[in-house]
Amino acid sequence: MLVFIGLGLNGEDMSLRGLREMREADVVYAEFYTGVVFKLDLQGLERIIGKPIRVINREVVEQRPDDILEAAKVKKVAFLVPGDPMVATTHIDLRLRAARAGVETRIVHAASIHSAALGLAGLQSYKFGRSATVPFPDQPSQTPYEVLAENLERGLHTLLLLDLRAEEGRAMSANEAIDVMLNLESKLKRGAFTPDTLAVVVARAGSDDALVRADLVKHLHGLGFGPPPHVLIVPGRLHFLEAEALRVFAGAPGDVVG
Amino acid sequence: MLVFIGLGLNGEDMSLRGLREMREADVVYAEFYTGVVFKLDLQGLERIIGKPIRVINREVVEQRPDDILEAAKVKKVAFLVPGDPMVATTHIDLRLRAARAGVETRIVHAASIHSAALGLAGLQSYKFGRSATVPFPDQPSQTPYEVLAENLERGLHTLLLLDLRAEEGRAMSANEAIDVMLNLESKLKRGAFTPDTLAVVVARAGSDDALVRADLVKHLHGLGFGPPPHVLIVPGRLHFLEAEALRVFAGAPGDVVG
Repeated sequence: MLVFIGLGLNGEDMSLRGLREMREADVVYAEFYTGVVFKLDLQGLERIIGKPIRVINREVVEQRPDDILEAAKVKKVAFLVPGDPMVATTHIDLRLRAARAGVETRIVHAASIHSAALGLAGLQSYKFGRSATVPFPDQPSQTPYEVLAENLERGLHTLLLLDLRAEEGRAMSANEAIDVMLNLESKLKRGAFTPDTLAVVVARAGSDDALVRADLVKHLHGLGFGPPPHVLIVPGRLHFLEAEALRVFAGAPGDVVG
Repeated sequence: MLVFIGLGLNGEDMSLRGLREMREADVVYAEFYTGVVFKLDLQGLERIIGKPIRVINREVVEQRPDDILEAAKVKKVAFLVPGDPMVATTHIDLRLRAARAGVETRIVHAASIHSAALGLAGLQSYKFGRSATVPFPDQPSQTPYEVLAENLERGLHTLLLLDLRAEEGRAMSANEAIDVMLNLESKLKRGAFTPDTLAVVVARAGSDDALVRADLVKHLHGLGFGPPPHVLIVPGRLHFLEAEALRVFAGAPGDVVG
């Protein structure tokens, strides 16, 4: 049995069921390369659940998961994952490998940046088009810009997640993401992300010092948003309640959101 | 202080932080009209947090929230909400009213059907277009069909939430939703939802007996999926890993998902 347990966004976000399943497990693995969990006290958690937590990296999960799967054939194995477990493609792949090996799987859900970020900004979930990730400049991709342009044409909001390379200790900041998007704008020229585009920075969603700031890109650019992770939201057409939420909860100037 | 606390999808889905905030609160309200929380033992929870939980309905939250806001001016008030708290527009509105009344607000995130349902189906979050809700036939709307058609034209998946009327004890079943969508098809004729469309039913996401079933609409139609809540997913273009996931986790016939 392999149980994927979501840790949510901070050290206190795991669910009561998640904690129970960790306690009942024979072996506990964890990964922290698909997302950030704030203030997670791993040693404290090991004491609470009464067993060690083995932190594994992307390479082990994707290339050499055999030890995990072998253990899961005869024991109850818990695998702790940032956010909601199955949002990351890498874990869908592991779950399929488990199924092929005849191992039963279960999922314990938890808070995800996908719903948390938009909730913090006060934007309505059913008005979001598809989301995309802004990659570091050494792995350039036009996808986030194209996704954004397509959503904007339909009046939809866009959630842009920012690249994370936990192995290198790097998480993209909102300012880096703005640079990447402005570069794509100057190349693709569809007017989707200019200095005069309204954008929202959500920093540290799920932590006690989460910060939400909405303004034109040219005014956001260069501001300090504190430590990562950050995400960017580019709103499409705003409902009047959403405009008010951006003023009240994200400090958007009245002349910018109407 | 008004703290919105997500309960997630089942009685054990609340986070450690959610439980701590309930314990620290002076007054605790809860609503169950925006979603379903499986097997939530309210009396047991009242004992654990040492105070009563006042269940309020939509009318109180939307029309007469004055008692809640007055209490929140001088006390710590917790408001328990199914899923992730700010996904429902009604709660964005309450949070804005609180801000207007000078009341500080906080959000404690939890699992949402938005990320849980797609994870259970093994579909990738960044390939979903916007979502929509299928309303009961007495409040007809073309929106879910139009959203679906627009997503399909772009090869994107669509999450269709199904109407819930907790006040009347009604939650739409997948079969009712299929009827509504087939009726819209016969009216709008864009080929987005026909008997030969591939669809996925996710029943009771987040519960121990969650069920995921993928097949052509004509084969899904009339099957029993057990008690609600149900959601429908209509996949767009499938990545080969997604096709495998639908076969392995949702019983999709090989000739249907390729």
